[in-house]
Amino acid sequence: MKKFVNDPRQFVAEMLKGVALANPDTLRYVPEYNLIMRADAPRADKVSVIQGSGSGHEPAHVMIVGKGMLDAACPGDVFAAPPMDYVLETSKLLATPKGVLHLINNYTGDRMAFDMGKEMAEAEGVQIKTVLVDDDVAVADSTFTIGRRGVAGNFFVIKVVGAAAEAGADIDELVRLGDKVNSVTRTMGMALTSCTPPAKGSPLFELGDDEMEIGVGIHGEPGRRREKLANADTIIDELLEAVVTDLPYERGDDVALMINGLGGTPIGELYLLYGRAHEQLEARGIHVRRNYVGEYCTSLDMAGASLTLVKLDDEIVKGLAAPAEIAIRTF
Amino acid sequence: MKKFVNDPRQFVAEMLKGVALANPDTLRYVPEYNLIMRADAPRADKVSVIQGSGSGHEPAHVMIVGKGMLDAACPGDVFAAPPMDYVLETSKLLATPKGVLHLINNYTGDRMAFDMGKEMAEAEGVQIKTVLVDDDVAVADSTFTIGRRGVAGNFFVIKVVGAAAEAGADIDELVRLGDKVNSVTRTMGMALTSCTPPAKGSPLFELGDDEMEIGVGIHGEPGRRREKLANADTIIDELLEAVVTDLPYERGDDVALMINGLGGTPIGELYLLYGRAHEQLEARGIHVRRNYVGEYCTSLDMAGASLTLVKLDDEIVKGLAAPAEIAIRTF
Repeated sequence: MKKFVNDPRQFVAEMLKGVALANPDTLRYVPEYNLIMRADAPRADKVSVIQGSGSGHEPAHVMIVGKGMLDAACPGDVFAAPPMDYVLETSKLLATPKGVLHLINNYTGDRMAFDMGKEMAEAEGVQIKTVLVDDDVAVADSTFTIGRRGVAGNFFVIKVVGAAAEAGADIDELVRLGDKVNSVTRTMGMALTSCTPPAKGSPLFELGDDEMEIGVGIHGEPGRRREKLANADTIIDELLEAVVTDLPYERGDDVALMINGLGGTPIGELYLLYGRAHEQLEARGIHVRRNYVGEYCTSLDMAGASLTLVKLDDEIVKGLAAPAEIAIRTF
Repeated sequence: MKKFVNDPRQFVAEMLKGVALANPDTLRYVPEYNLIMRADAPRADKVSVIQGSGSGHEPAHVMIVGKGMLDAACPGDVFAAPPMDYVLETSKLLATPKGVLHLINNYTGDRMAFDMGKEMAEAEGVQIKTVLVDDDVAVADSTFTIGRRGVAGNFFVIKVVGAAAEAGADIDELVRLGDKVNSVTRTMGMALTSCTPPAKGSPLFELGDDEMEIGVGIHGEPGRRREKLANADTIIDELLEAVVTDLPYERGDDVALMINGLGGTPIGELYLLYGRAHEQLEARGIHVRRNYVGEYCTSLDMAGASLTLVKLDDEIVKGLAAPAEIAIRTF
C-alpha cells in the first residue's frame, strides 16, 4: 500500500488532528465524534449547517468547514457513515435558537445515521431540518443507495446554503435554497483506477490496465459500464452528454461547470478536461459563467474525474460569489 | 497509461487552453510561446515577474499567474525547460519601464534558456534581473543541476516578490527580497511512486511495491537513497530532520511549514503528515506561524510529498499575508 499512513485504524483521527493543528484560530476539533467545527459556532444569530458523510472524500467535508460554508462536519471512518451518536452530539453542540440544518448526501447509511440522530436531538429540544443531495445521474439506485447518489454537486448546495446562513436566513429559507440548488445540479464521474482504503491495504475493486469505469461512485461503486480506456475528449464528451441531457440543460442556459478530481489525478489533466467541456458546452449554446477545477469530493487516491453542471440564476450566483473562508488556504 | 490525454504531443497546449478558458477576464494565452500572462500586464507602474520551468509541476507556474503573484509563465513541454525564444518573447511582451524579473528554479536547462533569452532581450532594450531558487537540500548536484535544485520553496519566493512588485517595489528591491526568501527556505521531498509523462506513456523510473525514494527530485531524479517503505511518521521525521538541520532552523524560530503533494497523493494524507510535522517542530521549540498544505509544485501523477520550511520575519510575513488572485479559485 503506497500511502502515508501509520496505524490504518488511526488514519482519520490523525488526518483530523492535522486539520485542527493547521487551523488553531478558526476550528475546534472534538476527537470523540470526529468533529471539526467552527471555533465561533454555535452562533445564536444563525442556523448551524452540518454535514457528516464518510471520510476519504476530502476536502469534503472537514476541510470546508468555515465562514460561509459548513459550521461543522462529523465524518465516519473511511467510506463509512458517521455513527448515529456523532450526529446526535454534533447537533446538540451546534444547536442554536435558529436551528440546525443537516445536509446529507443520499446514501442509505448516512440517511439512517442522520435520521436517528435527528430524532434523538429533537427529543432534546434541538430544531433540525434536512436537505438531501442526489446529483449523480449515473445510476438510478446503487450499491449503497436507494435513489441517486450524492456526489460532488454537494459543494454547490453547501456554498449557497452556507452563504445564506451566514447572512442570517432562517431554516425554512435554507431548506428551500438547498433543495433548489440540488434540483438544478447534475454530476457524472468516471474512474481510471481503483482506490485503496488504508484499512484494507489493497485496491477496493479491480480495474484492468486498459479499462475504465464510466459512472463510478465515490466509494468505487459500479457505474453504468466498464469500457476500454478512451482518450480525454471521448471521456469528457460522454460525461457531458449524460449530464446535459438529464436535467436537461438547454441552449441559452447559464451554468457553473465543475471538473472535480477524484484524488489521484493531477490538476493539469483536470484543466485539459475543462477546456474540452467548456468548448462543447458553448457549442451547444450553454454558457459557462462560473468554473470550478480541482478537488472538491474525492475517492481517496482514485485517478478519475467527475463533471458537474449547475443551472444558474441570480439567487444561486449570489450565493456562489459570496465570500467564504475554509480550512484549506492555498495561497 | 491511465491519464486524461488525447495526442500526448498536445498535452501542454490543451492544458493551457483549459487554463485560459477558465480565466477569460484575467488571463491572456499566447499559444506560440506556451505563455499565460495577466490580461492587465505589462503595467508601466510595476516590474513584471515571470517564471518558465517545465510543465508537469502544476499549479506551478501557469496556474499561479495573477495579481500579487506571477505576471506570466512560459513553460516548456513536460519536464523540459522552455525554449530560449519563449523567454525572449515573453520578456519583450512583459517589458515595462521598471523592468522584468526572471525567477528561475536552478536547473541547467532552465538557466541556459533564461540566460540566453535575457541576453537577447537586453539587446532589444529590456531591463532584466534574475533570482535563482535552490531550496532542495536533498543533493548537492543532481541529474539536471549544478548545485541544489529549485523545488516547492519557489512558491514562497513568488509570493513575497509578487506582493512587493504589486506594491510598486523597484527591481533591485525585488532581487533583494527574492534572494532573502530563498536564503531562509529549505525543502526535501520523497516519492512513494514514479510518475508517467504523457509522451512517454510509461513510468519515468521504476520503484518497487515495497520501496520509496527519499530526496527525490520533481522530475523523478534520484534522491539520497532508496529505502523500504516506512510509515508516515518515520517518513516525515526524516524529511524534517534533513530540512531543520540544514539551515539550521533553531529553537525560538518562527516558520512557515508547507506540506506539498506531488500530484497523486490525496489531501487527507497530506494533512496527516502536516499534523506530525507541526507537533515535531513545536517539540523542537520551532513555532509554526503559517501553514500551507496541498499541491504547489507537483511531478505529474507522482504519489509523494515534500516538506518546506521558511524562517519568518516581519518582512516575509507581510509578503505572505498580502492578497493574491490566481487562476485556481477553489471556493
